[in-house]
Amino acid sequence: MIVHHLYSGGKDSSLAAWILSRLGYEVRLVTLSFGLLDNWSFARDTAERLGFEHQVVYLSRDILEKAADMAVRDGHPNNAIQFIHERALEAIAAMPEVGRVSDGTRRDDRVPFLDLPRARSLEDRFNVAYIRPLLGLGYKTIRELTERLFVVEIRESEELEKADYEVELRHLLRERGIDPLEIFPKSHYQSRVLGWKEKSI
Amino acid sequence: MIVHHLYSGGKDSSLAAWILSRLGYEVRLVTLSFGLLDNWSFARDTAERLGFEHQVVYLSRDILEKAADMAVRDGHPNNAIQFIHERALEAIAAMPEVGRVSDGTRRDDRVPFLDLPRARSLEDRFNVAYIRPLLGLGYKTIRELTERLFVVEIRESEELEKADYEVELRHLLRERGIDPLEIFPKSHYQSRVLGWKEKSI
Repeated sequence: MIVHHLYSGGKDSSLAAWILSRLGYEVRLVTLSFGLLDNWSFARDTAERLGFEHQVVYLSRDILEKAADMAVRDGHPNNAIQFIHERALEAIAAMPEVGRVSDGTRRDDRVPFLDLPRARSLEDRFNVAYIRPLLGLGYKTIRELTERLFVVEIRESEELEKADYEVELRHLLRERGIDPLEIFPKSHYQSRVLGWKEKSI
Repeated sequence: MIVHHLYSGGKDSSLAAWILSRLGYEVRLVTLSFGLLDNWSFARDTAERLGFEHQVVYLSRDILEKAADMAVRDGHPNNAIQFIHERALEAIAAMPEVGRVSDGTRRDDRVPFLDLPRARSLEDRFNVAYIRPLLGLGYKTIRELTERLFVVEIRESEELEKADYEVELRHLLRERGIDPLEIFPKSHYQSRVLGWKEKSI
């Protein structure tokens, strides 16, 4: 039972990967990149520390360009992030021999998030099962599991130390001469999973 | 980390209990009863076969009467089932020293199902975490896990061999001289978890 899991190296996608492994799935982590930056390497680092298999899948730069258009038009990144996330899941689902796709989206997430019709559409169009291990968990539960499992570093840091697609989207906006701070809400600190605390896979 | 898990003895609530135990929770199964019938004993049977702690919690018959009123008024049991489920979760959440409440509701369930505002309201009013291990899983995933884990008996059978609250609701309707078949959709077969197949807790 192999599952391909969309992975940023953050706490949520790391916790979801752990849950999948506890349910007996063979977890293959997949980090998306548009090839602008090598920030995917932070996800690879964390994947190695946690002992998961990891691969990078490249998405067309057209998708990022279109997302940047949306972010500029909206003055807010939500639709752009949602758009990229859906394309990312589709890209993984379209890979040969992929039968299960998962991510770390949570019950309390507003974006990225696939509502039920979209989740079913993904499953039907690509003949995959779409698994979201964190969907039924609230923030308290996610926090208690994360604190039990992971050594996490929290600090103010440069955004490059993340492997989610926000980083390349910000980069592209900057290339277009747009200050990402005019579009993205400010975030003051970042957390990064450094390794297992008590449990391991 | 103790969690009190609403349990009917069926496949979904058994699978959810297994997932909770795999995540490191100490699982206490709770079956609700209105005291009309002893169909809770089927859940106790299955709980024993699976090796989980089990208890029965009695709900006021007023709740069942009110649910029966709703079912008769609507000509359909959905609102009644939803009503009982919410009261059941509240009853568990209100028990002393309960900090986590869970159930086996699925992504694809229409009822019973707590939307996000209701889920958060339950958590806030009772200061508990509400955990739904199956919420992020589609039917394919639930089927593959269930088939791997449980010996399941599927057959046409009397409804009494279930421990969900539908059974007492049907019974009360019959006591009122109403044929439950006029309100409930027909179900042709029932499945019952008999024990572990490959894995155990």
